[in-house]
Amino acid sequence: MVKNMALGRDYATQACEIAHALTVVGERWTLLILRDAFYGVTRFNDFQTHLGMSRSVLAERLQKLEHAGISLRRPYQTAPPRHEYMLTQRGIDLWPVLLTLHEWGSERTPQGQRLHFYRHASCQSQLGPYGQCQTCGPVAPQDVEVVPGEGVTQNPADPVSRALLKPHRLLTPLSPAAAEA
Amino acid sequence: MVKNMALGRDYATQACEIAHALTVVGERWTLLILRDAFYGVTRFNDFQTHLGMSRSVLAERLQKLEHAGISLRRPYQTAPPRHEYMLTQRGIDLWPVLLTLHEWGSERTPQGQRLHFYRHASCQSQLGPYGQCQTCGPVAPQDVEVVPGEGVTQNPADPVSRALLKPHRLLTPLSPAAAEA
Repeated sequence: MVKNMALGRDYATQACEIAHALTVVGERWTLLILRDAFYGVTRFNDFQTHLGMSRSVLAERLQKLEHAGISLRRPYQTAPPRHEYMLTQRGIDLWPVLLTLHEWGSERTPQGQRLHFYRHASCQSQLGPYGQCQTCGPVAPQDVEVVPGEGVTQNPADPVSRALLKPHRLLTPLSPAAAEA
Repeated sequence: MVKNMALGRDYATQACEIAHALTVVGERWTLLILRDAFYGVTRFNDFQTHLGMSRSVLAERLQKLEHAGISLRRPYQTAPPRHEYMLTQRGIDLWPVLLTLHEWGSERTPQGQRLHFYRHASCQSQLGPYGQCQTCGPVAPQDVEVVPGEGVTQNPADPVSRALLKPHRLLTPLSPAAAEA
């Protein structure tokens, strides 16, 4: 019975800040969609091909993020109508969650090779615990670059992964198509 | 099609540290089970009544956490056989993830009231961003207390919630039954 209940309703009985956060971002795929948004993905098709998830689930997750005030959708083309998705400040405030997941996950990748790491854009130092720059102190996500590590696939099938073979500043649109033009 | 695939298999195509972490801790309920483990819950029935989740899903999640080296199970009684669940160091290393979720969720609780907050046990200062003690600096979870806020239900139905009406040091067994004896 509990299995079939909606996530929000389940967690709503858990009177706790962590449960409140998970009600919004705890659904399958949502944190990976947010990761992609930090990496500069803005368009539906780019999320979809990079994540390899169903279009209907992606549309539903993006709509929930919009309703929760984490992302916003704005038109970039009218004929046919097309939208892009951007993080709001509330969404950007989730950076520490992704950062700590990344830190924990980085000790557990297959073969122990780095896939991606984060560095401070202005001084190129790799970020330490809690995303602090070892040289300069706390760093906002806008000043962080995601950098491919030695374990990353060199011939990925999708344009977002190919664009991320070069260092890229977070929250800057990635424009994977333009990168390949 | 994608909808019905197992979570691990889905995320395994995402070559990234965050996806690796979510493969292990990204399933529904898992982060709330871990929260409870940090709060000192050690017994199956206490997890079950506190979380209000199905026994079969709880058993499956606890087994996965054990297989991932995040928790371990040890007998505390032989007739009938009963086990308790404890976090390993790998599990304790997940504290920053819970802390950042708590921080983000704390701005979004209903009525804006605090439900729980964390403080440094030795100096009683409330923890600031990234769980740092404003007075003493970084604090290990073993030195953190979870403290009920003004928004917490004063007459909760389950013994774990009742035991958490008093400040409690993380990773110290909670013994909810003993607290009511």
